[in-house]
Amino acid sequence: MSVSNIEWTEAEKQVAQTAFKTAQAREAQAIIEEVRKTATAIVDLEEVWRLHDFLSARRHEMDGKYDYRYSNLIFVFAQLVSDGWLSLDDLEGLSQEKRTKISVLSQM
Amino acid sequence: MSVSNIEWTEAEKQVAQTAFKTAQAREAQAIIEEVRKTATAIVDLEEVWRLHDFLSARRHEMDGKYDYRYSNLIFVFAQLVSDGWLSLDDLEGLSQEKRTKISVLSQM
Repeated sequence: MSVSNIEWTEAEKQVAQTAFKTAQAREAQAIIEEVRKTATAIVDLEEVWRLHDFLSARRHEMDGKYDYRYSNLIFVFAQLVSDGWLSLDDLEGLSQEKRTKISVLSQM
Repeated sequence: MSVSNIEWTEAEKQVAQTAFKTAQAREAQAIIEEVRKTATAIVDLEEVWRLHDFLSARRHEMDGKYDYRYSNLIFVFAQLVSDGWLSLDDLEGLSQEKRTKISVLSQM
């Protein structure tokens, strides 16, 4: 399945940018809520370092995952759908071909 | 000023262990309070990563600082006094010589 050389129309680029930002905002919000909830319950330093480990992992993951290059975007969206940060409905406006590829990859 | 080969009596070791744990607990509590306060006010991911940076620095610092070896303890206590986690009163029960060394080093 070739996904790197796929063409993106201007309209699709708009949809892609919006979906990308939506996923990023949703995931950011989930992290913020997790940090708040965890921090409120912290009673010892071990728990502080567990929060630190959690943030190290999330940061590393977020840095790698949100890579907005059109050659890579089908994979990025497939990952975001797989992780539950996007639904295929959020990608309405992309060609059927792209959405099918994203859907198939998201289930791998 | 020689501090590495200094002798510690059993009574001094007790005082030292208590003071060491006291400082550690105070610093841990300060970090916990800072995390709680910061986390409550977080509204975006940039602030989450700033909290992560803060925790990385504190963890690195705590790991290095709380080194309970008698050959090193005068320096550790001097640092803890300098940072405000211990007062010289917390070290009552150590010989006057040790307390003077700690006091002098804490002001360097």
